[in-house]
Amino acid sequence: MKITILSMFPESFDSFQSFPVVKRAVDRSLLELEIVDIRKFAGGSFRHIDDSPCGGGPGMIMRMDTLMRALDSVRTPSSHVILLSPKGQQYTQKRARELSAAEHLIIVCGHYEGVDRRFEDHTDEMISLGDYILTGGELPAMCITDSIARLLKGALREGATSDESHENGLLEYPQYTKPVDWNGEKVPEILLSGNHGAIDKWRRVQALRDTRKYRPDMFMKYEMSEEEKKWLSEADQNDE
Amino acid sequence: MKITILSMFPESFDSFQSFPVVKRAVDRSLLELEIVDIRKFAGGSFRHIDDSPCGGGPGMIMRMDTLMRALDSVRTPSSHVILLSPKGQQYTQKRARELSAAEHLIIVCGHYEGVDRRFEDHTDEMISLGDYILTGGELPAMCITDSIARLLKGALREGATSDESHENGLLEYPQYTKPVDWNGEKVPEILLSGNHGAIDKWRRVQALRDTRKYRPDMFMKYEMSEEEKKWLSEADQNDE
Repeated sequence: MKITILSMFPESFDSFQSFPVVKRAVDRSLLELEIVDIRKFAGGSFRHIDDSPCGGGPGMIMRMDTLMRALDSVRTPSSHVILLSPKGQQYTQKRARELSAAEHLIIVCGHYEGVDRRFEDHTDEMISLGDYILTGGELPAMCITDSIARLLKGALREGATSDESHENGLLEYPQYTKPVDWNGEKVPEILLSGNHGAIDKWRRVQALRDTRKYRPDMFMKYEMSEEEKKWLSEADQNDE
Repeated sequence: MKITILSMFPESFDSFQSFPVVKRAVDRSLLELEIVDIRKFAGGSFRHIDDSPCGGGPGMIMRMDTLMRALDSVRTPSSHVILLSPKGQQYTQKRARELSAAEHLIIVCGHYEGVDRRFEDHTDEMISLGDYILTGGELPAMCITDSIARLLKGALREGATSDESHENGLLEYPQYTKPVDWNGEKVPEILLSGNHGAIDKWRRVQALRDTRKYRPDMFMKYEMSEEEKKWLSEADQNDE
């Protein structure tokens, strides 16, 4: 697939293109990543890409004509155009999976002071990364690209993503590695038992409990199997 | 204030340190930004920073001993230690404002495959940027740093942040700039009227309507003034 990012600050993406998973996806031709400088599309004698708001107020607003020239230079009939905006739908892992099947994504990085409202009608989707304010859409564009790149078949080893938080509706079970004793803080004994059936059961119960504790909203939506209900209830009784 | 970021991939932050607002905050000594390479704290003859999970399974888990050595090298009694984790509280603008008053933040970037569970007990807070999976905590650490840097007094011009989405419980009103007519798509006439009272009222109504349309959850929580209720009701009637 191809991802085109339109930005006023293309140099922001220099380090990002060396991120291990992104680089691997590009090197293996799973992903074509194109960073386009919106500034190149400024027109008129002053070559403004932004201008003061109609009706007054502080800040500078990205101009419609510049944005549309930049967009038209890369858009094809198969492109899906995303504008990063606080109005957008909250980005989720489900949306990442859906977008990873697209042929060509165009991500437009807004400037924090604003984008001319008329531009919204020329995009296919607005996405928000969350209820906090960033200087621009560059970091969210990197987050979206990273989340998609790692889902492309061949970017990570097989099976690497299936147990992760959010992929099956639960947080991931707690993980431990060596040293098994760190200043008296020990790895749970069951993980050293070699009993894989018992380990799988323990991990599932811990994932259920962590989700219930830290993300009750996710836990409410999760439909436990009969086996999971039984295991969780047993574990809760053992703690009483 | 000072922000220290612990990462296995410190080179990921090269471009970030040139982001306009971050650079300005650092140049004006509002922010000291320190990137620490966790790899330097690997011990033992193999210098492993991660290792296979106890109990089996795919992936590599960041080791407790390496992480603790890295943390202990930068932590002081005034440090507040944040671990980026899907278990964490969802990051918000409110939390950004609170954290911008801290003396020293330490942000630990987890690796996507996991961090030894015991490390969590040595942090002050877990934060999640949202329900999607990234390769590592580097991009979220940049988002948090950017959101805080722009709130530091002197990083942006005065008053630049007060009208923004999320700062007053509403989405920002729609913004327009020149050209006032783009291929027949026009800027609303009221914004060209020069009547500032009418413009302020129109903008408030649009902010209310956009929030109601795009973010009903925010709208539900917002307490409208009597004046706002009246204006919104009038505008709704005019549309019928």
